Amino acid sequence: MDFLIREAVQADMESVHQLVTELAVFEKMPNAVKVTVEELTRDGFGERPLFHCFVAEADSTLIGIALVYPRYSTWNGPVIHLEDLIVTQSMRGKGVGKALLKRVVAYGLEKKVRRIGWEVLDWNEPAIQFYENSGAIVLRDWDVVQMDRAAMKKFMEE
Amino acid sequence: MDFLIREAVQADMESVHQLVTELAVFEKMPNAVKVTVEELTRDGFGERPLFHCFVAEADSTLIGIALVYPRYSTWNGPVIHLEDLIVTQSMRGKGVGKALLKRVVAYGLEKKVRRIGWEVLDWNEPAIQFYENSGAIVLRDWDVVQMDRAAMKKFMEE
Repeated sequence: MDFLIREAVQADMESVHQLVTELAVFEKMPNAVKVTVEELTRDGFGERPLFHCFVAEADSTLIGIALVYPRYSTWNGPVIHLEDLIVTQSMRGKGVGKALLKRVVAYGLEKKVRRIGWEVLDWNEPAIQFYENSGAIVLRDWDVVQMDRAAMKKFMEE
Repeated sequence: MDFLIREAVQADMESVHQLVTELAVFEKMPNAVKVTVEELTRDGFGERPLFHCFVAEADSTLIGIALVYPRYSTWNGPVIHLEDLIVTQSMRGKGVGKALLKRVVAYGLEKKVRRIGWEVLDWNEPAIQFYENSGAIVLRDWDVVQMDRAAMKKFMEE
């Protein structure tokens, strides 16, 4: 299959939003996407972009994305975080995910970071296998903790 | 016990580095800290700081830190990540951690983010209990994935 990997432009954000929503459905959280196309279009571009996005394109259609931003590890200094690596369902198993991950790793090497990190659902075995085959390590003893806005406000009243 | 919470300054970074190292030992990874005092001093300050640090101080000594930076959620937009919340062993159980977390949550509300997130080791039950008592949710089905520099280079050769 012919596809190309390129940097995202603002006009891609509608398709990016669709792919993000497709992933949320797959991850069993269909209502989790609060972000809008307008927010993505504003936040990822301009003088201080909050993320950097690569896209995979075939026949002028976006079939995958990899969205990254910098983080700071107090053990490793500046690192790259891969927030989303998405390939649309019908295009999986064709090397698109690997090509996107390679672009992200090349970006990380260019930025001279000591590490790239991301998160995976522990039941998503195909993803875990792909990541481990790529040389990544899944740290099964680290869990993600989140405090949402309602909880933040409640905590401040204590 | 009397202590105060304030913003970190560059001169604090040596003590911050010590506390980070103390946590790495507690987390059974004593050799994990590659970052230097000089890197922390450079990276956290200046025109484009890579992190923001709060410290807890008692008797002119740093007894705790909370280190945060922005992340970007494709579901929630801009969020705050709490990379480290550390209270030195001898000062635990005195409300220092809660005071630091409150400062971080106030910072998040000020920045109008929809969420604050962090990570915890699944065997660190006192920390998990503290976070859950504070209204945070521990997502036990999300694992952390990491690819280090050696793995990144190897993956590019495939």
